[in-house]
Amino acid sequence: LSMNTDQASNVRPILWEEGHLRLLDQRRLPHAVEYVDCRNAGAVAAAIREMVVRGAPAIGIAAAYGVVLAARTAYTKDPGQWRREIQDDLDRLAESRPTAINLHWALCRMRSAFEPIRGEPETELLGLAGKIHEEDIAANLRMSAFGAALIADSTRVLTHCNTGSLATGGFGTALGVIRAAFHAGTLQGVYATETRPWLQGARLTVWELQQDHIPVTLIADSAAHSLLAQRKAGWIIVGADRIAANGDVANKIGTYGLALSARHHGVGFMVAAPVSTFDPDTPSGAEIPIEDRDPAELIHCSGAALAPAGTSAWNPVFDVTPASLIDVIVTERGVIRQPDRDKIAALIGMR
Amino acid sequence: LSMNTDQASNVRPILWEEGHLRLLDQRRLPHAVEYVDCRNAGAVAAAIREMVVRGAPAIGIAAAYGVVLAARTAYTKDPGQWRREIQDDLDRLAESRPTAINLHWALCRMRSAFEPIRGEPETELLGLAGKIHEEDIAANLRMSAFGAALIADSTRVLTHCNTGSLATGGFGTALGVIRAAFHAGTLQGVYATETRPWLQGARLTVWELQQDHIPVTLIADSAAHSLLAQRKAGWIIVGADRIAANGDVANKIGTYGLALSARHHGVGFMVAAPVSTFDPDTPSGAEIPIEDRDPAELIHCSGAALAPAGTSAWNPVFDVTPASLIDVIVTERGVIRQPDRDKIAALIGMR
Repeated sequence: LSMNTDQASNVRPILWEEGHLRLLDQRRLPHAVEYVDCRNAGAVAAAIREMVVRGAPAIGIAAAYGVVLAARTAYTKDPGQWRREIQDDLDRLAESRPTAINLHWALCRMRSAFEPIRGEPETELLGLAGKIHEEDIAANLRMSAFGAALIADSTRVLTHCNTGSLATGGFGTALGVIRAAFHAGTLQGVYATETRPWLQGARLTVWELQQDHIPVTLIADSAAHSLLAQRKAGWIIVGADRIAANGDVANKIGTYGLALSARHHGVGFMVAAPVSTFDPDTPSGAEIPIEDRDPAELIHCSGAALAPAGTSAWNPVFDVTPASLIDVIVTERGVIRQPDRDKIAALIGMR
Repeated sequence: LSMNTDQASNVRPILWEEGHLRLLDQRRLPHAVEYVDCRNAGAVAAAIREMVVRGAPAIGIAAAYGVVLAARTAYTKDPGQWRREIQDDLDRLAESRPTAINLHWALCRMRSAFEPIRGEPETELLGLAGKIHEEDIAANLRMSAFGAALIADSTRVLTHCNTGSLATGGFGTALGVIRAAFHAGTLQGVYATETRPWLQGARLTVWELQQDHIPVTLIADSAAHSLLAQRKAGWIIVGADRIAANGDVANKIGTYGLALSARHHGVGFMVAAPVSTFDPDTPSGAEIPIEDRDPAELIHCSGAALAPAGTSAWNPVFDVTPASLIDVIVTERGVIRQPDRDKIAALIGMR
């Protein structure tokens, strides 16, 4: 069972092979292309927590496969009570990262399939996890077409973090839009922020765009403002980890500063995300839990300490961009210009 | 001859010892405290270019001592024509970094002493270089008192890059203001950006503040916007590499984005710089030359490649903040609120 399609890029971050989950180890990129084998839900939760796999949609898909492994374990332990036995593993998966809502969405969707299952659950649940995976790629392709049409007037755009194949089922949200615009012939190149502290831009986005021969220029995060002042990018395009009911967006730390700068310079600011990223139960950005990660991720780089021993650091890895700074949210169901509560409710209520 | 005073911090970045210039190697901090010995002007120019010494005022002081070494060489070569022989070395020093105007100011001041010299020039010029060095520390102390009074309402502030003893004669501009406010008892702690790509914040500012036991919390550059949104800092305080006649400020890349954010959040934005940083011959920021440095400085860290082979990068190391975003410029002669051409002309015309 392969979850990748021909339309997707050559990068295959999430595989189900030989009865278990294999995750491309994003901690080791771009220096090594290695997979981590996950044979139980605990291993999947650890891989999510330690960022073997990252990116909101990819986390959701990995967690869905994690439920398949959890169900196998639970059914082996007690075939009659697997729905009870699986609870601890579901909690473990749910708690692996706090900010991305796609994780909870995927777990909820998997759980909703439990009730009607008779006999062993693995086959049924693997089918659903595969469907979630395939739907994510299909959603990426649709939103990418919508987004590419919007940026047809720009030869260069700026993106932040990694939102490509590596962050999704295998195509990309913001980077999917960029990939589609490049293949449509309107986009000539991309500026990518390095994205401190984890360097998703330098390590992952540059690597992924190189695989697809899309020209990319790396910049320091803080050089983005000069780039906009010099009119070198026509749009900023980012993904999202959670979109509140009012359109506030939690995304990689630095997104908020880019949105402020885009508005100041009259540059368009686009968020590309699947509908699974919307969280109608979170009224606004103020209620989105923002993950603070270990300061060591900021203080160390490539195994070396950057700052002196005893350094204190604050390492929030997401921030909140208010809806008022967002020009358009692009989803697989269409686009929302000047997002607000009513427009979002209408879109996510659609079927 | 020691150029440091008791009022200055314990950090001694620039020394004249045993007849030559010794520069604390800022590439090696915080892991090693080592000095580079410069015995001729070419070595000083190389040390400036390669960032053994950095920070606009420190570059000016190092260059002044470089002129002493250049005069020695020229006088040894041809005592009667040393003013002609020295020209190549003066050009070499002038070309070592393009953005900081203090370098040109110091060279100009040294050169203005050439004419009346009779006999060997070294003694006279060393006296002047030492005076430039001591005056810089004295100017730091005066501007720090002015600045500290302005931020007396803030318990925490944010700074960018390194503007302390390491960047000056031995006390600091923005970090001098911070040091003075801490010793005055109003300031409780500092947020320091790591300052990519060269990590002046993580490597130098954290280290320097640790030496003085001033509490400091390191953040990623792009986390500054969340910090301000959460009202965790009352002021942003930065230095300057050049201030144009209209008050536009060239400073470390990222300063402009911080200024935009400060204005958006209603947080004060202060520039602390000696009068030697003003360049009346540059009408506005648009005419300030901005140094693009080797992309390798962005792509490599601690000797390891961060991005894949073949990565293209744009690495401007300064940006321009328009005067309209600056609330106050603090100098050793006093403060300029809402800087403009007339206020600046009045201040730098003062004697």
